[in-house]
Amino acid sequence: MEIIQVALGDRSYPIYIGTGISGCLGRLLREHPVGARLLLITNTAVRGLYGRAIEESLAEAGFSVTIGEIGDGEEHKTLNTAERLYDLAFTAGLDRTSPVVALGGGVIGDVAGFVAATYMRGVPFVQVPTTLLAQVDSSVGGKVAVNHPRGKNIIGAFYQPRLVLADTVALKTLPPREIRSGLAEVIKYGVIWDASFFSWLEENMDRLLAGCQDALSTAVRESCRIKAEVVGEDETEAGLRAVLNYGHTAGHAVEALTGYRCYTHGEAVGIGMAVAARLAETLGIMPRGDRKRVEALIRRAGLPSDLPAGLKAKELLECFYHDKKVTGGRLTFVLPEQIGRVVIKKDLEEAACLRMLDPMF
Amino acid sequence: MEIIQVALGDRSYPIYIGTGISGCLGRLLREHPVGARLLLITNTAVRGLYGRAIEESLAEAGFSVTIGEIGDGEEHKTLNTAERLYDLAFTAGLDRTSPVVALGGGVIGDVAGFVAATYMRGVPFVQVPTTLLAQVDSSVGGKVAVNHPRGKNIIGAFYQPRLVLADTVALKTLPPREIRSGLAEVIKYGVIWDASFFSWLEENMDRLLAGCQDALSTAVRESCRIKAEVVGEDETEAGLRAVLNYGHTAGHAVEALTGYRCYTHGEAVGIGMAVAARLAETLGIMPRGDRKRVEALIRRAGLPSDLPAGLKAKELLECFYHDKKVTGGRLTFVLPEQIGRVVIKKDLEEAACLRMLDPMF
Repeated sequence: MEIIQVALGDRSYPIYIGTGISGCLGRLLREHPVGARLLLITNTAVRGLYGRAIEESLAEAGFSVTIGEIGDGEEHKTLNTAERLYDLAFTAGLDRTSPVVALGGGVIGDVAGFVAATYMRGVPFVQVPTTLLAQVDSSVGGKVAVNHPRGKNIIGAFYQPRLVLADTVALKTLPPREIRSGLAEVIKYGVIWDASFFSWLEENMDRLLAGCQDALSTAVRESCRIKAEVVGEDETEAGLRAVLNYGHTAGHAVEALTGYRCYTHGEAVGIGMAVAARLAETLGIMPRGDRKRVEALIRRAGLPSDLPAGLKAKELLECFYHDKKVTGGRLTFVLPEQIGRVVIKKDLEEAACLRMLDPMF
Repeated sequence: MEIIQVALGDRSYPIYIGTGISGCLGRLLREHPVGARLLLITNTAVRGLYGRAIEESLAEAGFSVTIGEIGDGEEHKTLNTAERLYDLAFTAGLDRTSPVVALGGGVIGDVAGFVAATYMRGVPFVQVPTTLLAQVDSSVGGKVAVNHPRGKNIIGAFYQPRLVLADTVALKTLPPREIRSGLAEVIKYGVIWDASFFSWLEENMDRLLAGCQDALSTAVRESCRIKAEVVGEDETEAGLRAVLNYGHTAGHAVEALTGYRCYTHGEAVGIGMAVAARLAETLGIMPRGDRKRVEALIRRAGLPSDLPAGLKAKELLECFYHDKKVTGGRLTFVLPEQIGRVVIKKDLEEAACLRMLDPMF
């Protein structure tokens, strides 16, 4: 079991990473000053696979567990779902000291985190991510949210977990498309922060796609290490943390414009990273060779790198303006300078942006 | 204009207190790094009284103002109201830098604060309290929330404003019952923290009830000073801050058991403070003379000090267990030792509590 510490002063917390470590959850949680009743939020499928081990571990450590099952999929990431969970927590007599434990992927982590952040003005929160995407990205860093009919993650908070436990055994049962989706965020860390990790990914992509536990554990560990470094510098995205949005401006727009039906989040981020790299090359910020390596790795991970043919550049651009990252009406883009380093561009002109996007379709 | 600073590290903020200072809001807000669009949350009655001065001040300082009116009363402090406000904010193109300004009493401040805390994971928040209760209590300290069908303030956060502006001119139009309600919290500060402020209240109660601006300004200033001291020591009620709950355990129970129909919050707190003082005397914690002075001041402020005759001690006790302040199933009571000093009792036995409550009806 490896431990990565996210350094955030009195909100610091450990990420435990290992193969077959789910059974340690109860013991690890007992080390924290929390109450004996807890709410475990999961869905039916995840509960069938990992629920028993987690529930037993918690029961053995003396916790009384209430289960809150939510529906599977992004459409359940709503205030309505949160309301149902508040009700359950209240009925079960949970108080300010009662932990909320998220067992599942990004949707479960986001909703459970929002409930933990807002039930009785905040209760202890624990993340047990079971997808690659959740293990390398959404479970670390404290971004929690539900969707609003008008946009994803519009209602949320920054709320840090007390601990994260990432058992890579869970990745064995993950469908290949979910592994590929998670790899999009893994590739992102290489591009924005660490050229040697990017090279390691180029060398090990086949092993990762084949589900090799060793390679996946390394990818999870390195991704969490990089995210912990970035978040430790800037918890609430006042500055540096924005680099984590590389690939996400165009990615979110592609997701929204296709009604969240065609692409997984990771696939949309794959497209978004390729688009941002091409913008960077056109602007003379990134050398062609680096841009080609980024695109090649995205494709080798089985991810799309081209914008969907049916969209128009103008639609895409309009969508950019509704992004949470827009401030003061200015477009903000995270653009790679080279593999391992990005810049945040805040002065992109709309017309120039349109001219560059147009030939990409 | 007086300024009281709430010292919370990078979340510190000023409280501006004065008579006729509403016109300064735009200029004061401009000193902060916030966006030019903002959402002003208020209700029709408050807007009719103070809306124009506030809107003009904001417009003169270059802000583009969207108005979000909500219904009057506790029954509108819901997630539904919050959802409507998210929608309005999104439609108006508000982004992460756009302030949310609460103009009104406690309900408006609480809902607006919850929206500010959760829209796009948190936007700048400004409190312009217009009731005595909001000026001396709810606008300071960062407690924001909406109600859940099962309990008040069950869904919320700790979220500090960027600034608070308390214009005591607003108190001129306040109905006498609202003034009396606010005085309950003012008396609380004397009991828990400052014997000389308590004596000042004994001397000036008639002037306060007559609406004397000078006396009200002093009461607001001293109350904010005490609350700022307490909150500065303990932002999230991990310890000391619990002293602010003096009178609130029994007070909340009385509110809940009478369906929030019979008593204003301040009236219920009046009863709660008297009950806690009597418990303290029975336990030998507080001298009889001090207990009598507390009860006398509550009554002089025109507030009730007796439990409603129709309730039973057992009902009251059961209600205590659903309080947010209950942790690990133990009753917590804030009890006065003398005027100006309280203790937090966590080991009150249920049977003993029942024995003491019973004769109070």
